[in-house]
Amino acid sequence: MGRRIVVIGGVACGPKAACRVKRIDPSVDVLLVEKGEEISYGACGLPFYLEGQVSDVKELTTTPVGVVRDVNFFKAVKGVDVLLNTEAVSIDRKKKEVKVRNVKDGSEDSLSYDNLVIATGSSPVRPPIPGIELAGIYCLKTLNDGVKLKKAMENAPGKNAVVVGAGLIGMECLEPLLKAGFKVHVVEKLPFVLPALLDEEMAVPLMKHIESKGVALHCGDGVSSFAGDDHVQKVVTEKTEIPADLVLLAIGFRPNTKLAEDAGLDTGPMGIKVDAHMRTSDPDIYAGGDCVESYNIVTGKPIYAPMGSTANKHGRIIGNNLAGWNSTFVGVCGTGVCNILGFNVARTGLTERDAKNEGMAVLTALCPGPDKPHYMEGAKLIHLKMVADRHTGRVLGVQILGPGEVLSRVDTAAAIIKARGSVDDCFETDMAYAPPFSPAMDNLIVAANVIQNKRDGLIRSFSPAQVKEKLERGDDFIFLDVRTPKELEQMKLPYDNVVHIPLGMVRKKASELPRDKDIVCLCKISLRGYEAARILEAEGFDRERIWLLDGGIVAWPYEKIVNM
Amino acid sequence: MGRRIVVIGGVACGPKAACRVKRIDPSVDVLLVEKGEEISYGACGLPFYLEGQVSDVKELTTTPVGVVRDVNFFKAVKGVDVLLNTEAVSIDRKKKEVKVRNVKDGSEDSLSYDNLVIATGSSPVRPPIPGIELAGIYCLKTLNDGVKLKKAMENAPGKNAVVVGAGLIGMECLEPLLKAGFKVHVVEKLPFVLPALLDEEMAVPLMKHIESKGVALHCGDGVSSFAGDDHVQKVVTEKTEIPADLVLLAIGFRPNTKLAEDAGLDTGPMGIKVDAHMRTSDPDIYAGGDCVESYNIVTGKPIYAPMGSTANKHGRIIGNNLAGWNSTFVGVCGTGVCNILGFNVARTGLTERDAKNEGMAVLTALCPGPDKPHYMEGAKLIHLKMVADRHTGRVLGVQILGPGEVLSRVDTAAAIIKARGSVDDCFETDMAYAPPFSPAMDNLIVAANVIQNKRDGLIRSFSPAQVKEKLERGDDFIFLDVRTPKELEQMKLPYDNVVHIPLGMVRKKASELPRDKDIVCLCKISLRGYEAARILEAEGFDRERIWLLDGGIVAWPYEKIVNM
Repeated sequence: MGRRIVVIGGVACGPKAACRVKRIDPSVDVLLVEKGEEISYGACGLPFYLEGQVSDVKELTTTPVGVVRDVNFFKAVKGVDVLLNTEAVSIDRKKKEVKVRNVKDGSEDSLSYDNLVIATGSSPVRPPIPGIELAGIYCLKTLNDGVKLKKAMENAPGKNAVVVGAGLIGMECLEPLLKAGFKVHVVEKLPFVLPALLDEEMAVPLMKHIESKGVALHCGDGVSSFAGDDHVQKVVTEKTEIPADLVLLAIGFRPNTKLAEDAGLDTGPMGIKVDAHMRTSDPDIYAGGDCVESYNIVTGKPIYAPMGSTANKHGRIIGNNLAGWNSTFVGVCGTGVCNILGFNVARTGLTERDAKNEGMAVLTALCPGPDKPHYMEGAKLIHLKMVADRHTGRVLGVQILGPGEVLSRVDTAAAIIKARGSVDDCFETDMAYAPPFSPAMDNLIVAANVIQNKRDGLIRSFSPAQVKEKLERGDDFIFLDVRTPKELEQMKLPYDNVVHIPLGMVRKKASELPRDKDIVCLCKISLRGYEAARILEAEGFDRERIWLLDGGIVAWPYEKIVNM
Repeated sequence: MGRRIVVIGGVACGPKAACRVKRIDPSVDVLLVEKGEEISYGACGLPFYLEGQVSDVKELTTTPVGVVRDVNFFKAVKGVDVLLNTEAVSIDRKKKEVKVRNVKDGSEDSLSYDNLVIATGSSPVRPPIPGIELAGIYCLKTLNDGVKLKKAMENAPGKNAVVVGAGLIGMECLEPLLKAGFKVHVVEKLPFVLPALLDEEMAVPLMKHIESKGVALHCGDGVSSFAGDDHVQKVVTEKTEIPADLVLLAIGFRPNTKLAEDAGLDTGPMGIKVDAHMRTSDPDIYAGGDCVESYNIVTGKPIYAPMGSTANKHGRIIGNNLAGWNSTFVGVCGTGVCNILGFNVARTGLTERDAKNEGMAVLTALCPGPDKPHYMEGAKLIHLKMVADRHTGRVLGVQILGPGEVLSRVDTAAAIIKARGSVDDCFETDMAYAPPFSPAMDNLIVAANVIQNKRDGLIRSFSPAQVKEKLERGDDFIFLDVRTPKELEQMKLPYDNVVHIPLGMVRKKASELPRDKDIVCLCKISLRGYEAARILEAEGFDRERIWLLDGGIVAWPYEKIVNM
């Protein structure tokens, strides 16, 4: 028998590590233990199973050609032994043994190892809210969870569903719930949806979209209790009561660190601590996937970022190192993407809030615009926000959302951020251009240019939030809206201090504008607003008084009068 | 009057440079001359005007909110003076004057300048083929060309169209021609379509797709003459004769360098020579857009890469420098994207052929695969080829094509190549993952891993072309096809030396395979083929005899038996 590698956990990182080391070094002996019934499955596909796009949950366990990745497959193809229904109970690091228990019959065994891989994943957070033990309250993590929830959706006593938590899983489950005929409420503790991914100003258009689909959002509200006899009947929040026949608890995930912790390995609230080789504080033990702490490439600090894509990468790195290679993992950018009722949302790197919390001095660009040239039939709006370091121009993060295309922008930004690139690097990236795909100046490049213009002092701007503050403070300033009269009819700001001069008239009518007040220029997306600001400066206005409203009226997340 | 800047050319780079410098420094005086009737238009939208997606060609000259970018707009909004129908005839660099002629009335004038911008664009190549002067033969470059061609499509004497040249423009015009009811033939001198963008093995699936739509491809054939009385009636090629009621000449573009050349500026066959500041050999004269030579980021050598996106970037850089800033442009990767009858094609960096012509030692990965997890309804095939430096792992180029999503992959690759990233950098890029968008391991990352595996000696492979050579030489080897019997029924190689063992049986049946012959392993896309190769090595086969067929049967561009 060769060197013995035991892998604990069979979803993503575990199988990947097991197969990878075996491919590199067939002489090793690999045993994988998994406490559930299935191995190597695409848990991220569960919302699409609920929705019906994936007809059988087993599809999530097959290879692309329909071969089931089961115990026989792992033995025959990968040369990896698998024990299902087998929970790792404890690790004896001195003896180099893992105690395991068969979850069906309770029998116990000891497995000796030369190297160990901990890939125990994560568990949904279930806080001790009164009533949480009631029937009808579900989480979504495993295939089994998916099957149960799907049945519950079919057999719920009524059609009121409450999603607790407006994170990725909660948001991805809106579509299946609506499709199944539920009236859906979402309760989110923080004041906006996807709070871990987005800045508030970016979340606003998403929230409007979600509400337009009939979902009731209760943001800035928390669940006090679940009420009902055996089965949940209502969700009692801090502010209201919501009828509930079905509750999806989607508050997030916690790394499963207990096994590692009990064995005396270094762990923290964000997971098992590993070095760049994915090695734990015991050099014979590796860990990866949702149970470990990740390293944020941008901040250089630990984050918790459980993602299927990252888990697979961890598996590969661990496999390499187990085979005796010297392989390291650089970390993550916190990239995420999802589709919420037809609205795409993507993020990579830091939000403005994240960056400020790190004490960074930032500049931002807020750029709504079509994802293709406006004359193309399929052109759709996307909102893009870029966050960059004020001093160096380094790109820190990008958020993109809307009905239009977001994937190319977020992936490109992730590559730039990974390379520690600046807004100049972004401008210089030779992004693909053709009208069916993208505008001549891609939205990402426009945003980079806006930030560069700010760095160069060409643009002095307020974010919507800053202007809102000015309004609330009662500052004496005017808005200069330079859109066409027709655009003004369709949408306008409901304030008394709005002056309207179409851009083509600004040069001529500049003399009518006050020189002793702040002027906040805007148009639809603030490209023309920028022109107007440049014109006013050219006309001799005090540049300290000329401002641009970032993102124009399209990105203005507060009150506006809309007649479409 | 302030400093006088004259800009020659009003399509993309010219207007951009003019407006940019004026925004930065309103004190300059900018005069733009354009020989045509229109300025600042989206010429790249012309195929979509022909197709009907853009209903009025004027839409290509408007801003996203419908404002026409005409002379008045440039004056009122941008503060830029424009002379239309005005051709620059010569430049007197000593006097710093441009002689211009009104193309309508022939009147001439001299414009003095402090700085000059040459943005004269490019012209379609019209080789002196006999009969090229016949009616019914069109090019597509200007709005006027578009209007003429559209009319010609409506009024052609018959329904036979011939596209000469299988480059981007020719390929983009297939859809409008088919939609208008034409029987379409394409004549291309080189043996495959999009020869400037793709390697031949990548062009094959595209060619099959085009042919499946009813287009007749004549690759490896050249036009000898156009025949007809006044109007073209047939295209005579080296190999055949094709009836023709309409000919689209799309052989490529040449930079318009005559003006610069006559003025004694450095020029070459790929355009006016400029430095990183976009400055010509005369420090008072800048040039940009389609008339200049570009710098290839990957090779460090000049290339000709006329693109609307690049022209806009040139304009910005020139504007910055005209304003006294120090602004440089790094160059391009030769990125391109297009949609051809529903098939997406994208390329960035070098093809394998390009790289070999540069004398580079390369490794390639040929990875067909779904663009999303296979269990998602919308998953579609894409073929991805990555080319990397064998010694350093540096990513040199990526080609992607198929019905699936290509934009995110090509843009991400462009960012990585721009940053001089390696396949490891590609692996480490935190690309966005969610089932509606992308697989857990993005196709780009899979390709990077394949190349890394080759570098690490885990994969020894043949490209389809190499295996084809082995077949033709009559080498004594076997194919080991490890797909399922069901897959084999659907598609197989038509050769006698194919052995079929499903992957799950390879370990068991390895002893039945010859140990004294080369074994070329394959499956659908060669992921299982790779497993099989690893198994055979683990079973003690001579690793020098075990090979993988890159890209599997899906990427095999030669004979195969298909029963779908």
